[in-house]
Amino acid sequence: METVMENSDTLEEVISCNDSCPNTQDTAAPITKPSNVQHRRNSSLQLRKGSLNQDSAPISVVYRPREGSIQLNNVSDGATSIDSSDPPISDLNLLLAATYVEDSLDGRHSDFKVSERHLKLYRLYQNKWGQVMLYVFLVMHLCLALFESPAVPGLEMSYWVTMLMETGILIFYMFRVTHISIFTPLTRFWSDTKNILILVLIGITFLDMVIYIGLTESGIYSVRWSRALRPLFAVNFPELRQIRRAFRNLRRTLPDVVNVLFLFFFSLAIFALMAYKLFGGRDLKWVDGRPYFDSYWDSIFDLYVLVTTANNPDVMMPAFDISTYYVIFFVVFLVICFFIYMNIILAVIYNNYRKHLKNEVRKSVYSKRQQLSKAFEILASNLRNKRVVTRTRFVQLMKFLDDKKNPTLINVLWIVLDSDGSDYLEKGEFLKLADLLNVEVSEVVDRTTLIGHYLPTLYNSKPSKMICAIVKNRFFGIFFDILTLVNAVVIGIANNDDTWDDAAEWVFLSLFMLEIFLKLYVFGARRFFKKVWNVFDFVVIGAAFIMGVVEAVMADEQESRLSLDVLLVLRVLRLVKIIGSVNRFKVIVHTITKILPSLLTYGAVMLVFYYIFAIVGMEAFQGLVRFSGYTAGSELYCGNEKLQNSDFWRDHYCNNNFNDVIHAFIVLFELTVVNQWHVIAYGYATVTDPWARLYFILFHLTCVIVVLNIFTAFVLEVFILEYTASCQGYLESQMEKKIQEMGLSFRKKRPRAMSTVSNENLVVSDSSESEEETESAPHPPTVEVDGGISPGVSQFYASGIDISSETDVRFHISKRLKNTEILLQKMFEKELSTHDLGPNIESLDQDLQDEHAYLVSQNHTLWSL
Amino acid sequence: METVMENSDTLEEVISCNDSCPNTQDTAAPITKPSNVQHRRNSSLQLRKGSLNQDSAPISVVYRPREGSIQLNNVSDGATSIDSSDPPISDLNLLLAATYVEDSLDGRHSDFKVSERHLKLYRLYQNKWGQVMLYVFLVMHLCLALFESPAVPGLEMSYWVTMLMETGILIFYMFRVTHISIFTPLTRFWSDTKNILILVLIGITFLDMVIYIGLTESGIYSVRWSRALRPLFAVNFPELRQIRRAFRNLRRTLPDVVNVLFLFFFSLAIFALMAYKLFGGRDLKWVDGRPYFDSYWDSIFDLYVLVTTANNPDVMMPAFDISTYYVIFFVVFLVICFFIYMNIILAVIYNNYRKHLKNEVRKSVYSKRQQLSKAFEILASNLRNKRVVTRTRFVQLMKFLDDKKNPTLINVLWIVLDSDGSDYLEKGEFLKLADLLNVEVSEVVDRTTLIGHYLPTLYNSKPSKMICAIVKNRFFGIFFDILTLVNAVVIGIANNDDTWDDAAEWVFLSLFMLEIFLKLYVFGARRFFKKVWNVFDFVVIGAAFIMGVVEAVMADEQESRLSLDVLLVLRVLRLVKIIGSVNRFKVIVHTITKILPSLLTYGAVMLVFYYIFAIVGMEAFQGLVRFSGYTAGSELYCGNEKLQNSDFWRDHYCNNNFNDVIHAFIVLFELTVVNQWHVIAYGYATVTDPWARLYFILFHLTCVIVVLNIFTAFVLEVFILEYTASCQGYLESQMEKKIQEMGLSFRKKRPRAMSTVSNENLVVSDSSESEEETESAPHPPTVEVDGGISPGVSQFYASGIDISSETDVRFHISKRLKNTEILLQKMFEKELSTHDLGPNIESLDQDLQDEHAYLVSQNHTLWSL
Repeated sequence: METVMENSDTLEEVISCNDSCPNTQDTAAPITKPSNVQHRRNSSLQLRKGSLNQDSAPISVVYRPREGSIQLNNVSDGATSIDSSDPPISDLNLLLAATYVEDSLDGRHSDFKVSERHLKLYRLYQNKWGQVMLYVFLVMHLCLALFESPAVPGLEMSYWVTMLMETGILIFYMFRVTHISIFTPLTRFWSDTKNILILVLIGITFLDMVIYIGLTESGIYSVRWSRALRPLFAVNFPELRQIRRAFRNLRRTLPDVVNVLFLFFFSLAIFALMAYKLFGGRDLKWVDGRPYFDSYWDSIFDLYVLVTTANNPDVMMPAFDISTYYVIFFVVFLVICFFIYMNIILAVIYNNYRKHLKNEVRKSVYSKRQQLSKAFEILASNLRNKRVVTRTRFVQLMKFLDDKKNPTLINVLWIVLDSDGSDYLEKGEFLKLADLLNVEVSEVVDRTTLIGHYLPTLYNSKPSKMICAIVKNRFFGIFFDILTLVNAVVIGIANNDDTWDDAAEWVFLSLFMLEIFLKLYVFGARRFFKKVWNVFDFVVIGAAFIMGVVEAVMADEQESRLSLDVLLVLRVLRLVKIIGSVNRFKVIVHTITKILPSLLTYGAVMLVFYYIFAIVGMEAFQGLVRFSGYTAGSELYCGNEKLQNSDFWRDHYCNNNFNDVIHAFIVLFELTVVNQWHVIAYGYATVTDPWARLYFILFHLTCVIVVLNIFTAFVLEVFILEYTASCQGYLESQMEKKIQEMGLSFRKKRPRAMSTVSNENLVVSDSSESEEETESAPHPPTVEVDGGISPGVSQFYASGIDISSETDVRFHISKRLKNTEILLQKMFEKELSTHDLGPNIESLDQDLQDEHAYLVSQNHTLWSL
Repeated sequence: METVMENSDTLEEVISCNDSCPNTQDTAAPITKPSNVQHRRNSSLQLRKGSLNQDSAPISVVYRPREGSIQLNNVSDGATSIDSSDPPISDLNLLLAATYVEDSLDGRHSDFKVSERHLKLYRLYQNKWGQVMLYVFLVMHLCLALFESPAVPGLEMSYWVTMLMETGILIFYMFRVTHISIFTPLTRFWSDTKNILILVLIGITFLDMVIYIGLTESGIYSVRWSRALRPLFAVNFPELRQIRRAFRNLRRTLPDVVNVLFLFFFSLAIFALMAYKLFGGRDLKWVDGRPYFDSYWDSIFDLYVLVTTANNPDVMMPAFDISTYYVIFFVVFLVICFFIYMNIILAVIYNNYRKHLKNEVRKSVYSKRQQLSKAFEILASNLRNKRVVTRTRFVQLMKFLDDKKNPTLINVLWIVLDSDGSDYLEKGEFLKLADLLNVEVSEVVDRTTLIGHYLPTLYNSKPSKMICAIVKNRFFGIFFDILTLVNAVVIGIANNDDTWDDAAEWVFLSLFMLEIFLKLYVFGARRFFKKVWNVFDFVVIGAAFIMGVVEAVMADEQESRLSLDVLLVLRVLRLVKIIGSVNRFKVIVHTITKILPSLLTYGAVMLVFYYIFAIVGMEAFQGLVRFSGYTAGSELYCGNEKLQNSDFWRDHYCNNNFNDVIHAFIVLFELTVVNQWHVIAYGYATVTDPWARLYFILFHLTCVIVVLNIFTAFVLEVFILEYTASCQGYLESQMEKKIQEMGLSFRKKRPRAMSTVSNENLVVSDSSESEEETESAPHPPTVEVDGGISPGVSQFYASGIDISSETDVRFHISKRLKNTEILLQKMFEKELSTHDLGPNIESLDQDLQDEHAYLVSQNHTLWSL
């Protein structure tokens, strides 16, 4: 702490500037006095009067909310408009504040000792490249399973090589953890289970490696059991917050589900007893000759399989053949254990999941606000007995956060945050900063295309304008949609051997290429690639063209089946584009694309379970089943005599083996889809031990019943949120409203009367989706702000100070969400009061509590600086 | 209307009485002057001072809410306390009001012409026995399929017989509809699609019968196609409101789902094209030799089956065997079309279903309130320029509704309704009547057992008291739980041939019978049978005993396999009782039993679809597949050569045929559970036509994707509501609170401090579940009433006027819900303002609107009577 105090006086004032220190000519005298730094991008602050007199002096735009006027200054006259007097802020304090703001933006806890050195180490740790490196190493670590025995054929490596690589990876992990341990307060570091777990995992892995080397070199068979723990590294590094949160949620949802599962298994046990006694002693046989409900454990397993529906009518048929009455047993069983229990398990999971998610999100919102509050205390100065952040400080902070930030954007941010028009930010206003910065605002600097810029005569010529008109015409789109459908039909009826097929393909390909080129010409690359469907089109057509050319050149040498297949897939993929053209699909597709990234988290959770089960499965079942084809000469019964009468062999499942990690993953995926999982389970139970079925039951319980249901719960929650709500948070729309009112929005301004469009339209009207339909797109929603802006101010903005004619700068508000975090926060944010700092930190989770306790115990007087 | 006006003057005043007409000595001078009628049950109003002086004069209890006192009057002194002066009310008007109240209780629309004759006809139609008759005839109508060709073996009847029966049933339908048409206003009758549809259905059925007779008698093969329409009768009769509502909800949810389904099928079509081109021309074979992705339609079907997971790994294996890369195709397909689309379909259905359900419930609540409002206008008299219902009127109404109603209960109802203690009901208060009456209040009149009553010396003897102590001890329960478990083990290890098994069974049976007898002795029959588990126990043990005795008597003659099986099932079912003893299961079991009746509605919906599909399936597929066993001598290939190489024959599915309605239902149930449905579909496609698969796809789409998802949505919604909420509506708890405060609750009063028990405990503390644990049961939840009672009144009741020592009358508030309707209304009731009459009838659905329009057009001035 002393360091900070010293620094705040001694560090040179690089950034701070306002009217009270007019001598300093530095980068941070923003808005009013744009220096050369700000001119790096000629779009930033210069307003060109119209598009013709581009040579005139740049003009700065200043908003004076209190006076209700906008002042356009010629920059050269040096007029300034900010006159609040601020004590200068030290570089370190600015850095500290910026760090808090950044952490709150990214949803991190700020766990660092407050000194310059530790702060810089912390920022170094948060460096993007360090994180990328970590990801690469984590992936590499997981990928080692490809090369280790049992390796994927062709990729085998000696265990010395993989162990050397693993050692390197572990050393990198050590390095990262050590890095964390340096800047984190010691007690915090050791009270964090994440860090301890990583260290323990590293220790265990090293131990396992040593044992393995020892045993193997002594000629004793040994198992690298620590490999199953590898995905836990990913879960425990602080960088993979999303996955850890998903796991935490899983862990917390589990106890509530356990009761239902118990009841379920109890019912299963009773039914199994009944089935065993009813059908057991009758010499009935399954179709494959296995005895029917022969033992109690078999009965339990068969009925458990029936709950998964995997052996549905088969399990019933032998009893059914004796008497129709026995069907009643199975119907009652299925109604109770499948239709009712399974739905109730889903309901319990959904219910609890939502509860915990809510709690989780509340915690993270409070944590965010507390960090922003810290930043506020650092930045604030006293004004009329209030602690407020002045505009100068705010601009300094913004510049510090992103050097290249557009000053006009900063200005807009300021206006949005300063909701009462007081020209300073109170704490409540400042706390909204993180949410505001998470609203993605891209700016469209220049809407003329590159060609139009460099060859204006050509671009503005009559034929060129005609082309533009044609391309912008909606029949242009319809024509190519029809062409795509025709292409589909051609693909459908063509035979691979037909020669006309190849010709037709080239015709279609060149037509589609033409479409892309025309669109590129007319809209320019920047606008073209803003549309997801265009990017998709470009990739699919481009790849097809390149592969087609390569294919044509090497045609005579050898026909690679794989490249032909890829070409085919690319051809068919073109049809997907039609989905983008059908209006009724737009809402659904849009919602799906929006929630897709969030679903990836559950993909990662699945991967963790898959990896663990795959390693265990490989150790248990490798080599027991082999695939060598089903033709005359090939091995019978998957290379294992015991499978002779099994469904496993009869159904040709030999390829469903655990002989390498890829095959293991495929088998696990099949098990996840559930159907026929019992055939695989029985197969492996036959070649090893009946208890091997437990492995499959365990997998089904964790991955299907728990994880998949949580996935369903998540989809339900997110989809309903996205689909029904206009999907705009409070701040987002406030921001957008202001930008619109200032005429700086990308889209044309629409009369307010149109804002009563239905929710569904709102969702469609994402600017990135409907860019070309600007003219026909409905007005973006202008959700009424509930008391955010005082009437006077909103009147001021509503009066329509439109500076759009003065500048080409436009803000392109994308409604796509930056990450899952924000989506999650949106879920329940409305239930949190806007100004609630979450003062009862006790109710939050332990780490926040610890942090607070630590700060108090260490007498950190930072906040009173 | 004129009739009413006339009657109101001429009809004799049978019921009305109060102080202003002290001469009339009739049944309805309640509370204060209990007549002999009220003495029918000696528990009703008489308060016995202690239990000893039973001979003293009965006492009436009067609450004077405004004075904050309770007055106990000796009945003989004739003191009265109600002094409001009411004009007498006519019998017809009382009848009318009672009809409105009854209709609002049962959720009916009151569609009748307002005249005495029509009103009485209406009440006749609503008569319970008429409705039971209708149900019987509806069931009979559906059961005809058992006897018609193709009939269940042994039940065949000539088509003349079944047609005669059907004619009879149709005539009964006609009779019902005619009955409706008499009392319903004509325009209302003909604008109701339900009535028209019934008439049309009757016409169609007669037409079909005539055609069938004509063709059959001419020797031409004919189909009774109208049989498929039979379940539509059940849906269209006004008595089956629940099912019709479920259908309406289904119909309204459908359009929203269609978009997702379109997108789904479009994606499916693209994937099918890709699969067809990738795998089609390669001479690959399925395991059964069928060509692999041979045509585009086959590809679509196989991928559709894959989405249902029914052919999961099998569809992949041939491609997988060629190259591991092809697995990517299937994984991507399953992730998109199964994991994502199917969940999104569920989300869309859940979302829309909830929306429509909400609307539906709002409508029914408004309709209920409007009917109550009509009743209010009829009953109300003017008091200080306000229209209010006096206590006398209220008591008259209650007596009219249920002659045997306990006056103390009426008193409690009055106190609860009269929330501001004004001694009259304003409209807002009166509107709560229906909800209040739907709260089930049973009374426990006498807690001494029959034996204790008739043989008090024996019952109060020392050994008897010891027995009571033993039975009430918790180790008694534990002992029998352990005994049940031991029984389970014995059942598990016993062999049917063992002789000791039979002996052990008798030992267990007699022990369990002893348990039941002891409990009956100690608690008395009434208390014993209040517990669901006791009833279950009694039935299971009793049935086992009876069957065991029968079996023992006829043992030597013949061992009926069926009765042995039933005995076995009964033995195993005993184990289910343990679920009731495990505390952690209680919440779940309780919730399940609560929502179970509501789920039956969806069972009925399923039945409707099943019936239609079964009739169609029987007409299309009867006789094509026959089952005759799989032993050496039996028919090969299910009696159809075409099935020679099919999985259908290989899996021994011959019994999955459409040869009679029972088999058809079983097949459809198998299809509902989904797994292996494609094998059945392929089987029938083989023996008839490839397009037969459409039948199965259609069934899967409607019954599995739509109906089952709606079922899931319903379970989600209901379960979450039941599980999380304390499951007590506003009125229910207010009612309970009052009863508790008056010391009339069945359970002992607990200190308020205990009311902070967790929600889970609340659910468990249903009185019917924890009767015996009264001492240890937590206090029932006393949800804080939000502004219902004015502070003064609640203080009055909080002061604890406890008259429990004065009487043995106790109210046993059951938290079980009377019907689905109320559960549904509970779902969203909180969102409706309590006093909202739903005045904007336009927003309600058409029939309500019609009713209103009709009332206005007919100048019904009923409300101003």
